[in-house]
Amino acid sequence: MVATSGARLLAENAIQTLCDQLLPISSLVTPNIPEALLILKEKGQDYGEIEDLESLKRLALSVSELGPKHVLIKGGHCPLDKDRKVTNDKSKMTYVVNVLYSEGSYSVFEGPYQQSRNTHGTGCSLASAIACNVATGMDVRQAVRDATRYVEAGIRMSVDLGKGSGPINHFHSLKRMPFPPEQFIDYVLELPEVQPAWKKFTHHDFVEGLGDGTLPLDCFKFYMIQDYLYLTQFARANALAAYKAQDLDGVAASADIVMHVYTETQLHIKECEQLGITRQEMETVEEHQACTAYSRWILDVGQSQDWLALQIAMLPCLLGYHMIGHRLHSIQDSKAPENANRYKQWIENYVAEDYSAAVKKGRALIEKHVKRQSPERIEELVRIFTRATTMEAGFWDMAMSAARR
Amino acid sequence: MVATSGARLLAENAIQTLCDQLLPISSLVTPNIPEALLILKEKGQDYGEIEDLESLKRLALSVSELGPKHVLIKGGHCPLDKDRKVTNDKSKMTYVVNVLYSEGSYSVFEGPYQQSRNTHGTGCSLASAIACNVATGMDVRQAVRDATRYVEAGIRMSVDLGKGSGPINHFHSLKRMPFPPEQFIDYVLELPEVQPAWKKFTHHDFVEGLGDGTLPLDCFKFYMIQDYLYLTQFARANALAAYKAQDLDGVAASADIVMHVYTETQLHIKECEQLGITRQEMETVEEHQACTAYSRWILDVGQSQDWLALQIAMLPCLLGYHMIGHRLHSIQDSKAPENANRYKQWIENYVAEDYSAAVKKGRALIEKHVKRQSPERIEELVRIFTRATTMEAGFWDMAMSAARR
Repeated sequence: MVATSGARLLAENAIQTLCDQLLPISSLVTPNIPEALLILKEKGQDYGEIEDLESLKRLALSVSELGPKHVLIKGGHCPLDKDRKVTNDKSKMTYVVNVLYSEGSYSVFEGPYQQSRNTHGTGCSLASAIACNVATGMDVRQAVRDATRYVEAGIRMSVDLGKGSGPINHFHSLKRMPFPPEQFIDYVLELPEVQPAWKKFTHHDFVEGLGDGTLPLDCFKFYMIQDYLYLTQFARANALAAYKAQDLDGVAASADIVMHVYTETQLHIKECEQLGITRQEMETVEEHQACTAYSRWILDVGQSQDWLALQIAMLPCLLGYHMIGHRLHSIQDSKAPENANRYKQWIENYVAEDYSAAVKKGRALIEKHVKRQSPERIEELVRIFTRATTMEAGFWDMAMSAARR
Repeated sequence: MVATSGARLLAENAIQTLCDQLLPISSLVTPNIPEALLILKEKGQDYGEIEDLESLKRLALSVSELGPKHVLIKGGHCPLDKDRKVTNDKSKMTYVVNVLYSEGSYSVFEGPYQQSRNTHGTGCSLASAIACNVATGMDVRQAVRDATRYVEAGIRMSVDLGKGSGPINHFHSLKRMPFPPEQFIDYVLELPEVQPAWKKFTHHDFVEGLGDGTLPLDCFKFYMIQDYLYLTQFARANALAAYKAQDLDGVAASADIVMHVYTETQLHIKECEQLGITRQEMETVEEHQACTAYSRWILDVGQSQDWLALQIAMLPCLLGYHMIGHRLHSIQDSKAPENANRYKQWIENYVAEDYSAAVKKGRALIEKHVKRQSPERIEELVRIFTRATTMEAGFWDMAMSAARR
């Protein structure tokens, strides 16, 4: 009937119909103060001045006597001061109250007075929000309370658009995930900020040298020893993940990975023996900075953040070796003699069925947890993923350069 | 022109206008296969059968020759088998491909074939999503790729509504927070699953006894000793929060709380001395189960989860004592003699300015972090809050019953 701006929106002769036909069958009406006064005037009641919270309550009661089951008086036109009195002094405007009269009792919803030009359509938004809340099963009081807060935050979070009175921000509590459900890993691997690091890791000279057999054996030996040392810390990281899991299935799943890593290290020791490296040598060699940095960074992510952050810190390793293995495997010459590439066994470890199964399981687990996160959290996880990927490339760098010394 | 269902949507004599007037000025057109064939037929080209991925590529090229800068052929009408051949055998349908021809090169977007009745409006959704993506600054290839995934997930996440062909789920990647920004604490305190525990904590018999001075002194003494033991663990929990903080400001903020707790314990010791409890007694008394359970549970939340979970585990203590203090303070008789209620000093500790300032700071910090979470994470945080609240009530229970033994 009357807009926030004061504009009359309803023809005068329609007011009588509204009062006689609509009010008696209404569940809830939500007039602002000028509207409530107009309705009462139509019914021959001259209400006088609105002075304080008490007069708002009486106004709600008076409107309810015309038939509606619930009446919400919106107090936006009459901000109150600290003593809950109507004030025209802008510097004293402190509260805005909405008053609900409902089946014999009053509820007062008090919010901060906000100076804003973006209040266009606040009444429509409030009524719609109440209707939606009631449709979800809330009682009228709760529906009004939540809707009041929704609109109040909409004004607070509004953005100035063009000129004049603008809309509230209806979307303040919506978040949009940057990828569809279950597609986090595809998303992260395609991100412009991830791609250079990912390419450096998965297409490193070390990797290419494994693929065509040209990698110097000393580089490989150096790598194998440091990788053994890394696996010990990686097992600890999975043990930490077991501690951080919130149910027994999760504890067991991580413990199972620890056991797999343990089995892998035993194979590792055998392969190293074949390369002429003794176990004693493997255990007395000093951990290289690249190995310490990467493994202890993972452990710190695990200790200082949550289970998922720890899993994401370990994800590039799981995914990358799988993708490297498959790519290198596909470029092996199938007609060449069995030992044409001395690194063929290494490549085959990462296309083996058990490793592929572990990757599939790991991916599914990550996707399940990631879709429960917020877009902001996704950004954090992407940063962890990128950092870990960089550390993986650093591990290859180490093997390439340290062995040359 | 032709719906997914096969229905003709455009009058035949409009097709010529479309081809002559619109195609030459189009940036991107997104025909499905029947539409592409109709357009080419209009131009006198009889294209023949679509057999495989290659024929889809040629189709895109042919349409592009009519003028559009980019052409996306939507392959939904012709699912492919594992060899990328068109198949009519439902059991062999494996992929659906969209083919983009763009400035001399092809991009193929392959998705899983999905058996679904909810594909109504997929073409409109795809074109709209591409347009939106382009509007945000993506290049056409990226815009098409993301839009293809968006629609593919929309089909996968659709819900059967009524009868016949239904819509895709356009909202699969939207999340709605259950409260407006910065209003988590108000929200959590009003939740039906929190309220009983919160009321039990803040209106406990122990609390009421403090308020009117009727609490037996032995109960209070027992509480004071256990609270001292608790504060030691609470300081450790804040030290853990300092470790888990991700920047130096956060580290310092938590260390500052540790120092405040330390100062509080010194006052505690003095108050206990006035009650006739020696420091030695305080340090040799065994921690009660309620104290151990609560404090070590907080430490475990902190170790096994993230910084925010730890803060939420400590939140009921911070908030509750503040609210209890203010309520009890407001019901003290201001005209009664200074020592009318022997617990007046205790009450005043929690309405003191420094405590109020700490609460305000703590609330703001929590609100800042909570708004970055997902709705699913909020549910987890609410469970932590509720559990901690229950433990607080357990602490009062302990003091009431243990002192009676």
